[in-house]
Amino acid sequence: MASDLDNLRVVLVAARNPLNIGAAARAMSNFGVRRLRVVNPYEVAFQEARSAVGAAGLLARAEQYQTVGEAVADCKLVVGTTVAGRRELQHRLHRLEEGTRAIVRQLKTGPVALLFGSERFGLSNDEMSHCHWMMRIPTREEHGSMNLGQAVAVCLYELVRGRKTAAANSRPGKKEKTSAASAELERLTQVLLEVLRASGFVNPRAVAAEEKLRRLVRRMALNGNDAEVLLGMLRQIAWKLGANERDNK
Amino acid sequence: MASDLDNLRVVLVAARNPLNIGAAARAMSNFGVRRLRVVNPYEVAFQEARSAVGAAGLLARAEQYQTVGEAVADCKLVVGTTVAGRRELQHRLHRLEEGTRAIVRQLKTGPVALLFGSERFGLSNDEMSHCHWMMRIPTREEHGSMNLGQAVAVCLYELVRGRKTAAANSRPGKKEKTSAASAELERLTQVLLEVLRASGFVNPRAVAAEEKLRRLVRRMALNGNDAEVLLGMLRQIAWKLGANERDNK
Repeated sequence: MASDLDNLRVVLVAARNPLNIGAAARAMSNFGVRRLRVVNPYEVAFQEARSAVGAAGLLARAEQYQTVGEAVADCKLVVGTTVAGRRELQHRLHRLEEGTRAIVRQLKTGPVALLFGSERFGLSNDEMSHCHWMMRIPTREEHGSMNLGQAVAVCLYELVRGRKTAAANSRPGKKEKTSAASAELERLTQVLLEVLRASGFVNPRAVAAEEKLRRLVRRMALNGNDAEVLLGMLRQIAWKLGANERDNK
Repeated sequence: MASDLDNLRVVLVAARNPLNIGAAARAMSNFGVRRLRVVNPYEVAFQEARSAVGAAGLLARAEQYQTVGEAVADCKLVVGTTVAGRRELQHRLHRLEEGTRAIVRQLKTGPVALLFGSERFGLSNDEMSHCHWMMRIPTREEHGSMNLGQAVAVCLYELVRGRKTAAANSRPGKKEKTSAASAELERLTQVLLEVLRASGFVNPRAVAAEEKLRRLVRRMALNGNDAEVLLGMLRQIAWKLGANERDNK
């Protein structure tokens, strides 16, 4: 998949704010996308973004083009992005998650361009005309306009979303905590019952109490470690209660 | 679903940069989330963000707190966010898409807090100890650190992403026992700590004990009824331990 993502070109068209260009580059680096292309940027902004402290290497290697046509010339699929409230689209419009699936398939076979328009106006009709279709980020109708860096982050997140490396649970160093065994939960239940009787919370002759406690302990869905810790706590409390009783007598 | 999202509180902890606070607010507005809470922000930054031109109304209505505990007191589920490279976590860690499904379910029944840490350091261990579990944004190991505004955008996008399908999973016939509110879990934590100190299980001067206990209590995933029952038990035990001590003297 890493090499697949190398087929993706993020294309910023007529970006005006160096902070946004820098933010787009940072999101690309976060999600493992390396090829940035800028079309007709506000030159000062672009140079400023490039020279910013800590700018990702991918900004330094960004390719600059005068027109969208040149920037996407080598791409077999060109996809534009938009948000809620652009009703005049002439293009086929996909939901972000659907469009992304198509992009992921295409990345296996060759370069794909993902276009983001300017902060103020998005992609113009002329710029969009280079796109095969458009993807819509599901913002609210009442406030559709997204920050450019955030739009890039959301789209790239959706692209890597299903990837295996995203597996948060597969941390080789960390052993998965297994649930406590029933026997352990039963020990816990019994010591808790003992403590509650000693403290006067439960009448020693109450029958239903044990059942209620057993259910309560099971509902906690404890893992093995936590069950052990709790058992240790309860034993100490039981001992202390008993010890005090003995001292009193 | 609109009303479900009203149950979500986005909590920015110790945010330092007004641009980031503003960007977080914008992403919230884009995705229809309205309740912003800030904990211990760099005051100048917060006032600057509030007075920025075009600041969303939700920034003006943001609630300010001194501690994470106060900011999440009314929430029945508290979820922290993190990125790649934080290996020392004591918490259960979910992939963003899995965690989000659990949040969507919980939003139907009551307030949920989604925590974002400071730009430099993320959430501290103490701040995390208020969380039931953590969600990880699938950034690259080599460059995990995300911009705060982009992290908020990605998480909220994932929340609204599956909206129709998420709603389809709701089971109207089944009444869910609602989870205990954070304030209740915190009371439970404090009384448990008191009991453990009185019984000699915890050294009164041990500092980490409180954090560990807080995490343990959150892992139990108690419903409101069970939390109340446990609190009653612990209070009785505390009373008995104290009473015995008094008798002994």
